[in-house]
Amino acid sequence: MAQPPRERWRSDFPRWFDWVLEVAEIYDYGRYPVKGMGVWLPYGFQIRRRVVELIRELLDSTGHEEVLLPLLIPEHLLRREAEHIKGFEAEVFWVTRAGGEDLDVKLALRPTSETSITFMESYWIKSYKELPKKYYQIVSIFRYETKATRPMIRLREVTTFKEAHTVHDSFEDADRQVGEAIEIYKRLFDELGIPYIISRRPEWDKFAGAVYTVAFDTVMPDGRTLQIGTAHHLGQNFTIAFDVKIQLPDESLDYPWQTSYGVSDRVIATLISIHGDDRGAVLPPNVAPIQVVIVPIPVEEGLRERHRRYVEEVEGELRRAGFRVKTDWREDVRPGRKFYEWEAKGVPLRAEIGAREVEAGTVLLVRRDTLEKVVVERGRLVEEVRRLLSDIAENLRRRAWEWLRSMVSRAESVEEARRVLSERRGVVELPWCGRERCGLQLEELVDAKVLGSPLRPPEWVRGKRCPVCGAPAVTALRLAKQY
Amino acid sequence: MAQPPRERWRSDFPRWFDWVLEVAEIYDYGRYPVKGMGVWLPYGFQIRRRVVELIRELLDSTGHEEVLLPLLIPEHLLRREAEHIKGFEAEVFWVTRAGGEDLDVKLALRPTSETSITFMESYWIKSYKELPKKYYQIVSIFRYETKATRPMIRLREVTTFKEAHTVHDSFEDADRQVGEAIEIYKRLFDELGIPYIISRRPEWDKFAGAVYTVAFDTVMPDGRTLQIGTAHHLGQNFTIAFDVKIQLPDESLDYPWQTSYGVSDRVIATLISIHGDDRGAVLPPNVAPIQVVIVPIPVEEGLRERHRRYVEEVEGELRRAGFRVKTDWREDVRPGRKFYEWEAKGVPLRAEIGAREVEAGTVLLVRRDTLEKVVVERGRLVEEVRRLLSDIAENLRRRAWEWLRSMVSRAESVEEARRVLSERRGVVELPWCGRERCGLQLEELVDAKVLGSPLRPPEWVRGKRCPVCGAPAVTALRLAKQY
Repeated sequence: MAQPPRERWRSDFPRWFDWVLEVAEIYDYGRYPVKGMGVWLPYGFQIRRRVVELIRELLDSTGHEEVLLPLLIPEHLLRREAEHIKGFEAEVFWVTRAGGEDLDVKLALRPTSETSITFMESYWIKSYKELPKKYYQIVSIFRYETKATRPMIRLREVTTFKEAHTVHDSFEDADRQVGEAIEIYKRLFDELGIPYIISRRPEWDKFAGAVYTVAFDTVMPDGRTLQIGTAHHLGQNFTIAFDVKIQLPDESLDYPWQTSYGVSDRVIATLISIHGDDRGAVLPPNVAPIQVVIVPIPVEEGLRERHRRYVEEVEGELRRAGFRVKTDWREDVRPGRKFYEWEAKGVPLRAEIGAREVEAGTVLLVRRDTLEKVVVERGRLVEEVRRLLSDIAENLRRRAWEWLRSMVSRAESVEEARRVLSERRGVVELPWCGRERCGLQLEELVDAKVLGSPLRPPEWVRGKRCPVCGAPAVTALRLAKQY
Repeated sequence: MAQPPRERWRSDFPRWFDWVLEVAEIYDYGRYPVKGMGVWLPYGFQIRRRVVELIRELLDSTGHEEVLLPLLIPEHLLRREAEHIKGFEAEVFWVTRAGGEDLDVKLALRPTSETSITFMESYWIKSYKELPKKYYQIVSIFRYETKATRPMIRLREVTTFKEAHTVHDSFEDADRQVGEAIEIYKRLFDELGIPYIISRRPEWDKFAGAVYTVAFDTVMPDGRTLQIGTAHHLGQNFTIAFDVKIQLPDESLDYPWQTSYGVSDRVIATLISIHGDDRGAVLPPNVAPIQVVIVPIPVEEGLRERHRRYVEEVEGELRRAGFRVKTDWREDVRPGRKFYEWEAKGVPLRAEIGAREVEAGTVLLVRRDTLEKVVVERGRLVEEVRRLLSDIAENLRRRAWEWLRSMVSRAESVEEARRVLSERRGVVELPWCGRERCGLQLEELVDAKVLGSPLRPPEWVRGKRCPVCGAPAVTALRLAKQY
């Protein structure tokens, strides 16, 4: 199928992304006078709202309960779990003054909420009978990033942080919960047509306070990977630190087990990036604020009234059928300019209606993903729009997965891995002995970061050897140039 | 109509409110280790979610666009409008450190967002043609309250602050917008059955930076008033301070006019309080997380299977008809205890189903507002539930308005006003000459706070005199014991 070009999209991605956020009026970045903080604009907010609704549906329907905890975490709470504070200390924003006075206790802007929710769980949960318990909240989190900040990708205020926190009566049940989290995120990303790679993060780079961490990564248009979701088995690390105890069936007391898992603004950054092309965003129909934009093509005086009525009828018909429709009636803007604007904004379908369409009783539909044109008779309009939107969603998903698969390859030597990553980035999998020392050396030798290992050792590493120490490989290690 | 008692509700309201938040599992307050900050629990969050949806519907359908601005406002931005910072300075939380270093620029946790949005509007708005422009956001705001904090009523983190910000090409159009805001809030409060008094706030107690402020107040069960919404005409105060200019039709440049208006968690606090009684909350059906709770009454062994099927059929039928239904199947809790819990949580309708109902093909419905019982035949169930829910909403609204009206009275002397307010609180209206000096004295003499004056001078003050200076009254002044 024909596709609009993806030259800038691929070769100049960071600038393409800044451009699309601006031209599509999604997110205003770089003007607000605090580094790493931006503003969601109305059109972008509508995309965000639909992604948030999708997340809520998925979590509510799997027994998660939404709560809302305070933004501010007192220092003594944040310090209670030793590994956790070590991991976050360098990134915390601190409130030290209020009402003209110094505070006795410094208050952190939440970098994440394991500490505050575990503190509350010591009041909320008493018995194994109440477990498993699954909470979540959708909030802003704050991290004083020292790396270069990027809109929606690396921010100091992450405004769409969905964090789930669960409690269990055994290690195994928490393990099972990580599996459920993975299934939920798969469904979320599938709904958005976002392709992913699931890895178990290496020991030396897991979440601060976790027993183990599973991560979802995707490959951005320039071949760098982006971590778009994580799930952590927290063991009893936080419940011991906060002295949360539950009664077990035999009436003894024990510390319950926990998990936590999160996704962020990066989900929205990815759906805008991964499906885009040189003309701008291409939004999956289920989160597009406008699914069909009608552009009336000017007609001569005598036909004007009939033309207007015809356009209004088409709009009404589509709206009654449940589609999100907008007619762009602006008189001081030419159709070509309108096409350009709505294409940049990623509206999945454009309907053009001019004299020809009025006379023939048709509508000209243009797909945003392929730019293909279809002439549709009025009587078949609703049915055809439904078919095309579903086709666009499917095409975006397929194209994105093809892209991802084309960017993942295997290598058996450091040289090969280096060459592939320097030529076109993406992800390279290497056989690995499983030792931390060799993993860290691989990062240095290949000049890339480790994403982790497949959840199960892949078949293909059997008989292969670790390129660092030469010992038999027990699994594969994925390396990539990361965002 | 019969009503459950409202003794504690009225005579011991603050404690009743703390109790209802706890027993109904709405909001966990007083345990989180930062003063003035609490946790929305799952059931409370569902109420909040529906109130937020209602607010969004009302604003979206009147051309407001939702945005999201950063939490942190740099000190120089917050200080730009002189009156504004004077009003908020004593209440601001400051971030001064991050990542182990002192920040060069102190960052305020937003107490409200007039300054940050006006700063952005200097980029966004160029011409009168784009006006009026109406933005809003729903966010947490932070105020270092020194008065006694109260859950949802006076907090240091207000978690459900809806703030609208609009821009206009004339003073008059901003004036009209304040009128629109008033109409929107009337519809919001009407939907929730919350009664209100609308006043123009006195000059000496308007919003910091406003030309004038209009406030919505309600009367809580103990007779104290609570401010539940405000709308401000901001004139050009902020646009001048931030040098926002627009092009007018004659191509000259001028500063545009602004308004802002907000509601908060207090809307939810009010709907829980105002409709309640000694048994707990009574939720309006449109925001109740559960509209009908089915309590199966245990039956003897032989009927058990038929009983279960019958209950499941009723539940399915109600769910398919679009009601939010839950069946309380807990086996270790007696029906009486279940009644108590669901009444405290304010579920509008309870359906009891025992042997008698199964045999007769009926359902016993119990209204939460009046505790009246109605036996309904299965064939008429959906229709009857619909009628009862609408009746409950109407009854709550009527009862709340009657309550409010009974708490507002007129007085012509300071003594009379003092007596009424000390006997039963509520609101007292006094004739007033309109002078600030007399208004301030009235507050002292009556020992109450001014709510403001009616938007239009009322008929009844004609010919009356100001009780302080004896000059002819030009309007009325409303005084009350406030929260």
